[in-house]
Amino acid sequence: MAILPPGIDSARFATALEALERVVGAGWVLSSDEDLKPYRDHYSPVPLAEDELLPSAAVAPSAVDQVQAIVRIANEYKLPLYPISTGKNFAYGGPSPNLRGSVVVDLKRMDRILEVNADRNFALVEPGVSYFDLYRHIQERGLKVWIDCPDPGWGSPVGNTLDRGIGYTMGFYRDHAAAQYGVEVVLANGEVMRTGMGALPNGRAWQEYKYGFGPDPSGLFAQGNYGIVTKMGLRLMPQPAHWRTGLVTVPKRRDLAPLINTVNYLNDLSMIGDPWYGSPLRPLLTDPSFRAAATRRGGGDADQLDRYAEAAGLHSWQVELQFYGSERTTLANWEYAKELMMERIPGARLFDGESLKVPLSREQIEQTTGPYATSMRRNITQGVPSLGIWKNLGRTEALPDTWAQGHIGLFAVLPRSADAVFEAQHVFADTMGELGLQSGITALSTPVMWYQFAFLFSAGFSTGGGNASNTPEGRAKVRDGLNALLVKAAEHGWGEYRAAPYFQDSVAAQYSFNDHALRRFNETIKDAVDPNGILAPGRGGIWPSHLRRTRR
Amino acid sequence: MAILPPGIDSARFATALEALERVVGAGWVLSSDEDLKPYRDHYSPVPLAEDELLPSAAVAPSAVDQVQAIVRIANEYKLPLYPISTGKNFAYGGPSPNLRGSVVVDLKRMDRILEVNADRNFALVEPGVSYFDLYRHIQERGLKVWIDCPDPGWGSPVGNTLDRGIGYTMGFYRDHAAAQYGVEVVLANGEVMRTGMGALPNGRAWQEYKYGFGPDPSGLFAQGNYGIVTKMGLRLMPQPAHWRTGLVTVPKRRDLAPLINTVNYLNDLSMIGDPWYGSPLRPLLTDPSFRAAATRRGGGDADQLDRYAEAAGLHSWQVELQFYGSERTTLANWEYAKELMMERIPGARLFDGESLKVPLSREQIEQTTGPYATSMRRNITQGVPSLGIWKNLGRTEALPDTWAQGHIGLFAVLPRSADAVFEAQHVFADTMGELGLQSGITALSTPVMWYQFAFLFSAGFSTGGGNASNTPEGRAKVRDGLNALLVKAAEHGWGEYRAAPYFQDSVAAQYSFNDHALRRFNETIKDAVDPNGILAPGRGGIWPSHLRRTRR
Repeated sequence: MAILPPGIDSARFATALEALERVVGAGWVLSSDEDLKPYRDHYSPVPLAEDELLPSAAVAPSAVDQVQAIVRIANEYKLPLYPISTGKNFAYGGPSPNLRGSVVVDLKRMDRILEVNADRNFALVEPGVSYFDLYRHIQERGLKVWIDCPDPGWGSPVGNTLDRGIGYTMGFYRDHAAAQYGVEVVLANGEVMRTGMGALPNGRAWQEYKYGFGPDPSGLFAQGNYGIVTKMGLRLMPQPAHWRTGLVTVPKRRDLAPLINTVNYLNDLSMIGDPWYGSPLRPLLTDPSFRAAATRRGGGDADQLDRYAEAAGLHSWQVELQFYGSERTTLANWEYAKELMMERIPGARLFDGESLKVPLSREQIEQTTGPYATSMRRNITQGVPSLGIWKNLGRTEALPDTWAQGHIGLFAVLPRSADAVFEAQHVFADTMGELGLQSGITALSTPVMWYQFAFLFSAGFSTGGGNASNTPEGRAKVRDGLNALLVKAAEHGWGEYRAAPYFQDSVAAQYSFNDHALRRFNETIKDAVDPNGILAPGRGGIWPSHLRRTRR
Repeated sequence: MAILPPGIDSARFATALEALERVVGAGWVLSSDEDLKPYRDHYSPVPLAEDELLPSAAVAPSAVDQVQAIVRIANEYKLPLYPISTGKNFAYGGPSPNLRGSVVVDLKRMDRILEVNADRNFALVEPGVSYFDLYRHIQERGLKVWIDCPDPGWGSPVGNTLDRGIGYTMGFYRDHAAAQYGVEVVLANGEVMRTGMGALPNGRAWQEYKYGFGPDPSGLFAQGNYGIVTKMGLRLMPQPAHWRTGLVTVPKRRDLAPLINTVNYLNDLSMIGDPWYGSPLRPLLTDPSFRAAATRRGGGDADQLDRYAEAAGLHSWQVELQFYGSERTTLANWEYAKELMMERIPGARLFDGESLKVPLSREQIEQTTGPYATSMRRNITQGVPSLGIWKNLGRTEALPDTWAQGHIGLFAVLPRSADAVFEAQHVFADTMGELGLQSGITALSTPVMWYQFAFLFSAGFSTGGGNASNTPEGRAKVRDGLNALLVKAAEHGWGEYRAAPYFQDSVAAQYSFNDHALRRFNETIKDAVDPNGILAPGRGGIWPSHLRRTRR
C-alpha cells in the first residue's frame, strides 16, 4: 500500500513525480516499496504502525538548480519535502521525515568539496560530502588541518551541523553549529540565498566571518525548516604538533565540585580538549550492597559512598584530560592542571597518560588505550572519521527482529556543576525506575562535555531486552517513557538538545516559556517565508499553519 | 521646531507621549529640544540638515513590563521605537535612529546584573549595565573572571553585542556575538520571548548552551529590529594566571604571507590572544621618496620596498603576540611561535616582550609599553574597561564646530591572507585619493584581528581638517566618499561589518547576492513579526513594508 502525501491523491501524486523526474532524470525519483526501503527509520519506535514516519517518495538532485526546480514543483503540488544529506543518522530517526508521506530530497549526489584552505583553516562543502570524503580529500593533499568528526564518519558535515551535532577535539570545533561559517540555502520560494559574507555577490571571506551585515538568520536553518542548505562553510582546526593525555582522580564524592570547576577553568581558557569524566568506583557495582547504595532513591549519600570508596582503596571520580599544541605546550598545560588540582582538591592523584607526536600513525590511532578505551577512542580525538562506534553500539544477533534492538533516550543539557550532576543522577534513575525502564544510571554516572560550555547527561536505554520494544506494548512503554522523561527533565530545568523526528514535538513542547512564545515566533516566520508549508513540515517542532493541528 | 514621527500629527503625538508617561512615570518621557540634546548624534554627517536622524522623543522604562507596555502603545499609535542601551556609541551614530522622528527607548535604567558565575564563567545582564558596572561588580566580589571589553568602557555588553562589537582578549571572547549566550526579548507584539535554554520555563543552563531546541532565531536580534533585548547572557573568560607578549619581525614584504599564516595557525589553536600587526618601516614615511614608493598607485612594489627596508636596516612587518595561561603555558606557546617563525621565515627576529603575573596591578595596567603603546593598551588586553582611547581619538580644540572633527570610514572584512592585505592597501588608498579624501593608508597598513577568524582593514578618515566636514560641501564629500568606498570594497568582495544608522542602507545594499535575497528574506520576516513596523525601522537595512520606499 503506497504512502501518499496528505491531501494528494495517487493520480496527482503520479503527475508530481513525473514532473520531478523531468528535473532530475529517470532513476532519481524513487517510489516503489523496494526502492524506499533505505528511506525508512530502521529504529522507528512505531514500526509498521499507521503513524510510522514513512516517506511517499525520494528524489535525488545533483545540483542547486535542480533543488530550486524541485521546490517550485513542491509549491505547485503542495508536496511536503524532507531534505537529507548523506550518512545514516541511526540515532536520530534515520531519513524519516516529521510528516508521514513527505518526499525525501536526498542530497547525496551533491558531493563536491568546493574548497579546503589550510592557511585560513576552513572548508566549503555540499550536503552530500561525508566526513570520510572530507578527510580523504585533506589526506590526499597533505593538508595540515583537522576535521572535528562525530561517530560514525559516514555522516556529512552539513547534515550533522544542521542537527547541531558534536565532535571530540577542542571546544570551539566540537560545537559544529558554532564552527558553521556561512550557508547557501534554497528558500521555499525556490530562490537561492547566502548568509554572512556570502551575501556579497563576490564575497571573499565567507568562511571567515559568519555574520555579514544586518540580522543573521543562519541559526534558523539548524534544526529548522526554512530552507534547503546546498552549501556550508565550516572552520577547521589546524593540525597540532602534539597530543597528550593526563588522568586526574579525586577521592571523595563531594570533590566532583572542585574537579568540575577546575576543568571548566582549563576548558574555557582553551587549555584542554574534550574532557572525559568517569568514576573509578564502577567495578564496585557488581557488589549488591554497593549497587544498592549507588542506586538509592533520592540520590547517593556522600558519606556512605565515600566509606565504600575508602574501603576499596578507590577514588570516587576521574577525568581524563587531553591536550593539543606543541609538545611543550601540552606539557605546560598538563603541569598546570596538576598544580591546580593538587592545590584545590586534597588527595587528588595525577597520572601522566600518553604523549604522542601528531599525526599519529595508523597503528597508534587504532591502538586501544586509556581508562575508557573503545575502538573509536583515538580516532575521534584526532579528527579521524571511523565506524568504530559500531563495535560498541551494534545490534546483537540475539534479537533478529529488525527494530527489536537499538537505543533511545535523551541527552539533557545540564549546567556544568556537580550539584546538577548529582541531581540528574537520581532524578533520571528514579524516574526511569518508576516508568519501568531499565537504565544504567547510578550515583556514579557522569556527564559528557561535547559542547563548549555545557554538560550533556545521558538518560538512554536499550529498546530491546528488558524494555521489550519488539512488542507493541513494549514499544508503547519506550515511547511513553521517553516522553515522561522529557517532562521530568524540563521540571528540573534541563532540556533535550536533539531528537528523532518522531519525538521532536515532545521535545519542543518543553521549551514553553511564556506560552510557547519562541515556537509561536518561529511559526510566524515559517508561515511568512514558506506559505505553502512545503519544507520539512514539523522539523524542530515547527509546523506550517495548515498542519499545526497535527502536532503530536 | 519639534520633530514628529512620520504620519503622526502633534496632537496625536502628545496623546501618545501621555500614554507613555503613564507607563514610566513623570520625568521619564523626554521631548523638549533641551531634553533631547543627549539623544543627538554629535558626529552626524548631516548636522541640522532635514535628514539628520533626530528622535522625536525618548522614553526610559525601568522594567520589562514597562517595555512591553511601551511596545503596545507604539502599536496603537504606530510610533516607531528605537531602543538603545547605555554608553555613547560615538563611532556608530550615537543614539540616533535609522528613521527620523523615532522615539528612543532608552534602557539605561534597566541596569541589574542578574548573575555572575565564576565557576561556570558567565554573566546575565540587563541592557543598562555598562562594562564599567560589570567590571566593578566582579572586582568587588573578587571573582576570577574577565570581561572582554571594547574601548571605551562606558558602553554596555548588551548594546555592544547587538551591534556585533569586539574586544581584545582571546579569540572566542573577542567575538561578542559568539560569546552571547541567550537573550530575552520583548517582541513587537509586546510579548516576552527567551531563546536557547531560556525557553525552558525553569531553564538552568541558559548561559551555557545557546541554541535550545529547534531553529534558533537569536541571530536576528544583532544588527536587527525584531525585538527589544531586555536580558542577555554572555560567556566570561576565566582569569588567566599569566600574561606574556612577544614581538616577531620579518625582513621582506612578501614575508607577510607566512607571517599571517603562522599567526592564523596559533590563533586557531587558541595559543595566542589578539595579535597586533604593524610595520617597522613606518618611520620611513617621513622620507618623501619612500612615501612615494609606499603610496604608489596600484600597490607597493615588493622589491623596491625591500631595498628601502634593507638600506634602513629595518624589517618590513611585525606582529606582537599575546599569550594567556599559566606562566609555563605562555612561555611554551611563545617558544613554539618562535620556533615556527624561524623555521618558516628566513631572517625572522624574535623579541621577548613582557611577562607578568595576572592580575596586573593598577600601575602595571596604566604603564604604557609595547610597539603600539597607547594609554589603553594594557587595559583592553586585560579586560579592564577604560576611557583611554579618547587620549588618542579625541576631538581637537582647533576646530570648535561641534561636528567638525571626528572619524568616519569603514572596516572592511578581509580574508586572513597577505594577498588580501596587499590588495586592500592600494584599492582603498587609490580610491580615497580619487575621491579627494585624505587617508593614512599606505603599503605599510595592516589589518586588525578583532574577530576570531577574519581581518578587518580600516579605511577611515578624519572628517575635519583636509576633509573639511564643517561645510555642507565638505560633509557631502565625506558622505559620498564613504558610499563610494563601500561600493569599491564590495567589488573586491569585502564588506563592512558595522555602521552608523545613516550609512546602514548603503552598507546593506552591498550584500545583494541574488537580487538582495537575504534582505528580502529578512524583510519578509520583519513584516510577519512586526506588522506595524514599529521596532527600529531601518536598522541593519531592514525596513517594514510601509517604509521600504524610504530606504536610502
